[in-house]
Amino acid sequence: MNSKIIRYLFGKVLIILGMLLLLPCLTALIYREQEGYMYLMVAVVTVLLGLLFSLKKPEDTVFYFKDGCFITALSWVIMSAIGAVPFVLTGEIPFYVDALFETVSGFTTTGASILSNVEALSHCSLLWRSFTHWIGGMGVLVFLLAIVPMNGGSHMNLMRAESPGPSVGKLVPKAGETAKILYVIYMGLTVLEFIFLVCGKMPVFDAICTSFGTAGTGGFGIKCDSMLSYSPYIQWVVTVFMLLFGVNFNAYFLVLFGQIKKALSMEEVKTYFAVIVGAVAIITFDVVKICGNFKDAIRHTSFTVASIITTTGFGTIDFNKWSVTSRLLLVSLMFIGACAGSTGGGIKVSRFIILFKTVKKELLSYMHPKSIKKIKMDDRPVEHEVVRSTDVYFITFVIIFVVSLFAISIDGKDLVTSFTAVAATINNIGPGLELVGPTENYAFFSPFSKIVLMIDMLAGRLELFPLVLLFYPVMWRDLLFSTIREKRKKKKID
Amino acid sequence: MNSKIIRYLFGKVLIILGMLLLLPCLTALIYREQEGYMYLMVAVVTVLLGLLFSLKKPEDTVFYFKDGCFITALSWVIMSAIGAVPFVLTGEIPFYVDALFETVSGFTTTGASILSNVEALSHCSLLWRSFTHWIGGMGVLVFLLAIVPMNGGSHMNLMRAESPGPSVGKLVPKAGETAKILYVIYMGLTVLEFIFLVCGKMPVFDAICTSFGTAGTGGFGIKCDSMLSYSPYIQWVVTVFMLLFGVNFNAYFLVLFGQIKKALSMEEVKTYFAVIVGAVAIITFDVVKICGNFKDAIRHTSFTVASIITTTGFGTIDFNKWSVTSRLLLVSLMFIGACAGSTGGGIKVSRFIILFKTVKKELLSYMHPKSIKKIKMDDRPVEHEVVRSTDVYFITFVIIFVVSLFAISIDGKDLVTSFTAVAATINNIGPGLELVGPTENYAFFSPFSKIVLMIDMLAGRLELFPLVLLFYPVMWRDLLFSTIREKRKKKKID
Repeated sequence: MNSKIIRYLFGKVLIILGMLLLLPCLTALIYREQEGYMYLMVAVVTVLLGLLFSLKKPEDTVFYFKDGCFITALSWVIMSAIGAVPFVLTGEIPFYVDALFETVSGFTTTGASILSNVEALSHCSLLWRSFTHWIGGMGVLVFLLAIVPMNGGSHMNLMRAESPGPSVGKLVPKAGETAKILYVIYMGLTVLEFIFLVCGKMPVFDAICTSFGTAGTGGFGIKCDSMLSYSPYIQWVVTVFMLLFGVNFNAYFLVLFGQIKKALSMEEVKTYFAVIVGAVAIITFDVVKICGNFKDAIRHTSFTVASIITTTGFGTIDFNKWSVTSRLLLVSLMFIGACAGSTGGGIKVSRFIILFKTVKKELLSYMHPKSIKKIKMDDRPVEHEVVRSTDVYFITFVIIFVVSLFAISIDGKDLVTSFTAVAATINNIGPGLELVGPTENYAFFSPFSKIVLMIDMLAGRLELFPLVLLFYPVMWRDLLFSTIREKRKKKKID
Repeated sequence: MNSKIIRYLFGKVLIILGMLLLLPCLTALIYREQEGYMYLMVAVVTVLLGLLFSLKKPEDTVFYFKDGCFITALSWVIMSAIGAVPFVLTGEIPFYVDALFETVSGFTTTGASILSNVEALSHCSLLWRSFTHWIGGMGVLVFLLAIVPMNGGSHMNLMRAESPGPSVGKLVPKAGETAKILYVIYMGLTVLEFIFLVCGKMPVFDAICTSFGTAGTGGFGIKCDSMLSYSPYIQWVVTVFMLLFGVNFNAYFLVLFGQIKKALSMEEVKTYFAVIVGAVAIITFDVVKICGNFKDAIRHTSFTVASIITTTGFGTIDFNKWSVTSRLLLVSLMFIGACAGSTGGGIKVSRFIILFKTVKKELLSYMHPKSIKKIKMDDRPVEHEVVRSTDVYFITFVIIFVVSLFAISIDGKDLVTSFTAVAATINNIGPGLELVGPTENYAFFSPFSKIVLMIDMLAGRLELFPLVLLFYPVMWRDLLFSTIREKRKKKKID
């Protein structure tokens, strides 16, 4: 293990986090809010800490995938730990576990809240909450790759660790360039949404927060009723942009370079939209009875389906009151999630495509034992490695899910609440059913359950393995030994 | 596809079924019940049909695994279709779909009933219900192998198709011998339980039915309160035998041949008992509050845990009223199920062992990318083929589960009822939670939902693939073409 590069990268992450904390400071300045000082203090301390860690640039920049996973998981935990501090210092979320829950929920783009009255928060805290979504959506280490010039070929291991999906395709040969392109697309779409929202007469502050929340597929609202009180136009704009941020960013890359036809023929993107159209069709039929007219029904249904499949979690309607079939469909969408390579969570459409194709292939091999077929996606064979890791991902997911479910069942809430609370956090959505439904929040859970759900959120966002590594003692031993070895080497040279 | 052997085997299955139907006839004779005539009639017709099909012994006895799966699935469906007829003819279950549900539930050893008052049934019908469990437990094709001398090496494909578990080990080189040994153990244990029950002053008729229900891990009770009204001694005997029938029969084979140490060291058997002890420990702690004393609590808990993990479904207590954690634990046990190579259902302990080992291996390969390790069980490497098919089994299971859940959600029952109804049928248990809890029954479901749940029961008992084949049009086309080809060949020869 290369402990030097881990320390160095970790320092850089802290510096970036400190810088990002200046945005709420600026907001406080505009709205003349006292809370801004707290953000400034935390920002300064974080940057100083970061400088301390990254003072010396390591000569050896080679590191393995496991190191990439480890630094990613560690960064996300520490970022959340620091990001939660201002909420406590301003007194807006007095208990640290609650503040941490809110911050983890923010960075992991979950949007599950413990606040019953968000409108009581200061502007700077509201902005910080939504901004964590935006940061977490694309990932801070991808951001690091985009802005810090680094040499060496190991950086793909950082992207692989932080980016969602069964396989990370490099858009261009260099990881740094890929990261830059991704952030340009990300920022471009965010600005576009902001413009559309402002054109719909949404206040600028609301439009910024909503754009951040949509872009990261996060879902923190700044109103107690989430998106209900905004105009139908605004709701439609948000619907469309939620869907756009759930698309595999490779498609946008192809569009940017004129390969629109290729982008439209991407199997994952086609399946993603097919599932959405199917779900909207089935549920609208059902919601018409509640809304009374088709126009409102299709708006609320489209919004909800987009919000759930992209794992955003904004709401315009209480789907807790829908029929069993509709609710089941929503829960299924929670697990399917968005496309790989998007900012959305869930198991991802492409993983499901691979799973279905695996089963189909296996069945065919029973029919025709001698045929050897490889699974294909977008006309390219899927590596055996990817198929196996998808299978294992799925099994690990189920294991983590069941263990979490047991852990929070100790709180004694009903089965549907417990089940959907885990589903809504591990898939980074936010609202679930019953007691964690769209009009409720997560405040009533015990601190222990909150910690379990936080782990689920991180496991979901980081796609299980990086977080599992963090609980693996051997990694820590390796880190310690590698640091000691280096110290000794240094002494010898001195 | 060898359509001749399929026809021949199918005929033999019908003959056996007809013979087995004579047992309720005998019961009717003893109790002087009119209903016996109906059973006799169905028996005679079935035997005649069987003779017709198996008139000509095929020369070519070679067939593939897919043929084995196909004939197995087909036999089970037709057996159920015929086995349901007496219930309708006697007027005890007037609607055919209900009668079919009851019979499928019997043969698949599920034990889910649509009857609210079983005590109103005639003795012969009660016995037939319980006897279907016994027939289905070890499987009628395995029985066929045991009694009909057949040459050719393809018969292992029949055992593989009908026996539960990720891989079927031949106990002895010949499939027929293996089948014989299995049935000897099966019958021996059944008789042993009967003796123990009669010693506990259980009426002989009750003891026969209970032994059949336990041996097949079925769970049809002959009292409205299942096992509640019997003495604690009887409840303990049933508990022990349920657990014994959930053990991999390979273990008994080893014991029979003096290799007790090897039997005790079987990984699956050890894990199975470890899970049981763990579950009983956790739940007893919880149930003490309901029962008031430790002695009753441990009896009810042991009975329930044994009943659920072995997928039997007998009951002595309404676990619907237990805490969320205990109920969740029971639902988990439903999915785990018994050992492979037992008469129990569920996903099977050995499959879970393989899944956990796969995940562990994958995680280790992230740590040490260069290490190549093979998954081992009982110190023998597990074939790559078995690992892959276990992964695929798991995924197929989830797909069938979710599709069924949607299908029955149309009935509009609550989520927990719908979820556990599917869980309790696909895992061949019987009772679920809420509206399908231990004191309830499945009568309220629509005919459509009942059909879906029947398919789930069959899919669970036949371990998914054989049943999936039945829905695969190519198999039917192959069967048709092969029959036509043979007819033509015959004409030419003539």
